[in-house]
Amino acid sequence: MAPSAVDLNCDMGESFGVYQLGCDEEIVQFVSSANIACGWHAGDPLVMDRTVALAAAGGLAIGADPGLPDLAGFGRRAMALAPDETGSGVLYQIGALAAFCRKYGVQLKHVKPHGSLYNLAGRDRATALAIAGAVKAFDPALILVTRAGSELAKAGREYGLRVAGEVFADRACNSDGSLVPRRLAGSVLADSESVVPRVVRMVREGRVAAVDGQDIPVRADTVCVHGDTPGPRRWRRG
Amino acid sequence: MAPSAVDLNCDMGESFGVYQLGCDEEIVQFVSSANIACGWHAGDPLVMDRTVALAAAGGLAIGADPGLPDLAGFGRRAMALAPDETGSGVLYQIGALAAFCRKYGVQLKHVKPHGSLYNLAGRDRATALAIAGAVKAFDPALILVTRAGSELAKAGREYGLRVAGEVFADRACNSDGSLVPRRLAGSVLADSESVVPRVVRMVREGRVAAVDGQDIPVRADTVCVHGDTPGPRRWRRG
Amino acid sequence: MAPSAVDLNCDMGESFGVYQLGCDEEIVQFVSSANIACGWHAGDPLVMDRTVALAAAGGLAIGADPGLPDLAGFGRRAMALAPDETGSGVLYQIGALAAFCRKYGVQLKHVKPHGSLYNLAGRDRATALAIAGAVKAFDPALILVTRAGSELAKAGREYGLRVAGEVFADRACNSDGSLVPRRLAGSVLADSESVVPRVVRMVREGRVAAVDGQDIPVRADTVCVHGDTPGPRRWRRG
Amino acid sequence: MAPSAVDLNCDMGESFGVYQLGCDEEIVQFVSSANIACGWHAGDPLVMDRTVALAAAGGLAIGADPGLPDLAGFGRRAMALAPDETGSGVLYQIGALAAFCRKYGVQLKHVKPHGSLYNLAGRDRATALAIAGAVKAFDPALILVTRAGSELAKAGREYGLRVAGEVFADRACNSDGSLVPRRLAGSVLADSESVVPRVVRMVREGRVAAVDGQDIPVRADTVCVHGDTPGPRRWRRG
Repeated sequence: MAPSAVDLNCDMGESFGVYQLGCDEEIVQFVSSANIACGWHAGDPLVMDRTVALAAAGGLAIGADPGLPDLAGFGRRAMALAPDETGSGVLYQIGALAAFCRKYGVQLKHVKPHGSLYNLAGRDRATALAIAGAVKAFDPALILVTRAGSELAKAGREYGLRVAGEVFADRACNSDGSLVPRRLAGSVLADSESVVPRVVRMVREGRVAAVDGQDIPVRADTVCVHGDTPGPRRWRRG
Repeated sequence: MAPSAVDLNCDMGESFGVYQLGCDEEIVQFVSSANIACGWHAGDPLVMDRTVALAAAGGLAIGADPGLPDLAGFGRRAMALAPDETGSGVLYQIGALAAFCRKYGVQLKHVKPHGSLYNLAGRDRATALAIAGAVKAFDPALILVTRAGSELAKAGREYGLRVAGEVFADRACNSDGSLVPRRLAGSVLADSESVVPRVVRMVREGRVAAVDGQDIPVRADTVCVHGDTPGPRRWRRG
Repeated sequence: MAPSAVDLNCDMGESFGVYQLGCDEEIVQFVSSANIACGWHAGDPLVMDRTVALAAAGGLAIGADPGLPDLAGFGRRAMALAPDETGSGVLYQIGALAAFCRKYGVQLKHVKPHGSLYNLAGRDRATALAIAGAVKAFDPALILVTRAGSELAKAGREYGLRVAGEVFADRACNSDGSLVPRRLAGSVLADSESVVPRVVRMVREGRVAAVDGQDIPVRADTVCVHGDTPGPRRWRRG
Repeated sequence: MAPSAVDLNCDMGESFGVYQLGCDEEIVQFVSSANIACGWHAGDPLVMDRTVALAAAGGLAIGADPGLPDLAGFGRRAMALAPDETGSGVLYQIGALAAFCRKYGVQLKHVKPHGSLYNLAGRDRATALAIAGAVKAFDPALILVTRAGSELAKAGREYGLRVAGEVFADRACNSDGSLVPRRLAGSVLADSESVVPRVVRMVREGRVAAVDGQDIPVRADTVCVHGDTPGPRRWRRG
């Protein structure tokens, strides 16, 4: 049976200092979960404070969006961190974000790794175990958001965590369910005409067409949307 | 006699990674000198490369805009660097920017410290000497851009550098010629009706009304304009 | 009546990446409280993880040592952060460190700002209120460690926090109790012959000789020691 | 015919802020070329200033040691920079270091990428071309230091640069001449009894035993030594 409602999650709090990114004030009205940047690939403490306040006021489920220590690359460039570096870095970022949740009296609900860390954790078991271990160490009740079938999903289950299967509204996927890398043409779907029925089918039927034409099964507990797509990802000037 | 032409300078190359700032492609048509950020308070190597190429193609005089090591604060938060830290930091940034000038076969013409460093160098002799010394060490032919009458102007002359007296099109000044800090109301002039005749008078007559109403002498070899005042870009956060 | 025991606190976890600093494994045997760096002025997540584990195993009270975002300056260079930047930065760092406490099943007990932030909070009410507010927002049971009589001590009490009065074993103080800045000669006491009776007198009698010879009252709930003094602060090569 | 003298190169200037690393003052007496860190993976402007002064006073050939933007990982963690990011980052760092050479009236002689960038440039043609292009853009007279036979050596020759073939005194190599990664056991040779004859044979005979026992040809225009192997300094954490 199809769900009567589906979770929509969106990355938020990606501004940094004078640099504005995204349109959090608008998107907060349309999504149900916020993945908030934790100051490594994006965000800063003041932005985190305001974003948690905004998401809490909007009634969104608040999650941490830990990333690689690479502000210049927005967490999208692969970095070969050792597993213990990954685990401690994720734990650090979760703790930092959770502090702002305490300030506003809300609960941190989920963790979703960002960008290159998300992709790596999807296919590398050591990285996946490090992340799942950090999440559990912080709070075993946290939900791990990742692609169903990924290494991170497996690691999460091994650690006894709840795992939410994620699909992307605006990203093409390979036949194993992993995302087509951003640097490849066609990786970002910009045509809202086709995006909507694609999402509806992923949610209702649990299936989607991969980039090679194969029709593959997906699990869509939550759908990731981007506040600034469609259109080639425009970085809004504040 | 009034000059037949005046130099207009503008900060450029202030984007960083995915973060876009300013509208360099448009402003390049309207100014004669570019002060290009060097990666400490803003800018990154790729942005520097593109901005030098853009400014060179536009025939602008290219200058370095060295700042404090504070990307999160955009170089606008005061930091108590020791003079040797300031001097070596400025030399580092000048050298980095000059490398891109070499790539494009253009000459680095001037140096103008950014933000809080500009203000501190205007009033602190040790900082001013450190900066002037770094500029001279790199190239004694470089022009130092600063407020006439400031400590930095004095230090520059002591080092035998050429000093260009600068005024700001859109900033209020105190009766000693220094800028009213940005955090104070009225520090940024947003009314283009009054900005234009004010600039014309600074250039033609060498005089301007300070924030306290006094009419003071200024030296306007070059006028600083901001690509974003007034207009949609906001420096303030959030 | 003099206390039968006094708390000795020490900054720990100040290594960063390949850079080793301090001798935490040795000092842990001699002190009762650890102020652990949180990755801004020193420390990194892996160092924090290991230092919390070390301090927990040694039975030390664990505290956060939040600092300015200035690794190059070790948090000792003054920076003019706005109060909301200070508050959110301190909250961020407390949360990050507390995450490692959760991992090891220990409680975060205190917060002691580092270096320049400590000094500024001692004399600037807005900064002090921002820090005290952040501490309270995270956990009203946390102890704020600072000089008795400082602005931070006052702000802490206004927020209902417990405040521990701190004295420094190896630092000279002014007649108002504030520390003599490190850049001044005589600021660091390197002669263990005189340091020991000085500390004993601060703890037993609540009095100390200031740098100008005045005998002043102090409150010594906790005594700060440095693992690498006496001797001009040597940064041990790992 | 064997050379009557061979160049010995060593990484220098790897301290950062309060963090001391290496023993540059001692090693400067024993080597002929200095590869000086440029502030990305290690070093800071003050350290660069002092190290250039030290190397110049010691009569060493001065080179730039540009690295990845990863101070926490000391430039040893792989990062997937795009070629234009690599090229502009290398140009930035060369320019920054060359500025200190200007200050001390010495010539920048060579460029040797650091750590993970060195290894990647050895096998990835796009990275190698980006680096060689940056070196040539700055100064076509610069010598590129790298392993003979590597992609970087090829790219350097294609750009018309002089290339110095490098061998490592204390590192094991694979049968293709590339370095055995540091994370593998046996990658660092700590036994000075065997290191010395090994180096002598590389220089005199142009041959060395690879880690798999094969005897392979090498080109040893310059031999890299580390000031800290074997000895008290540890790169490994904790």
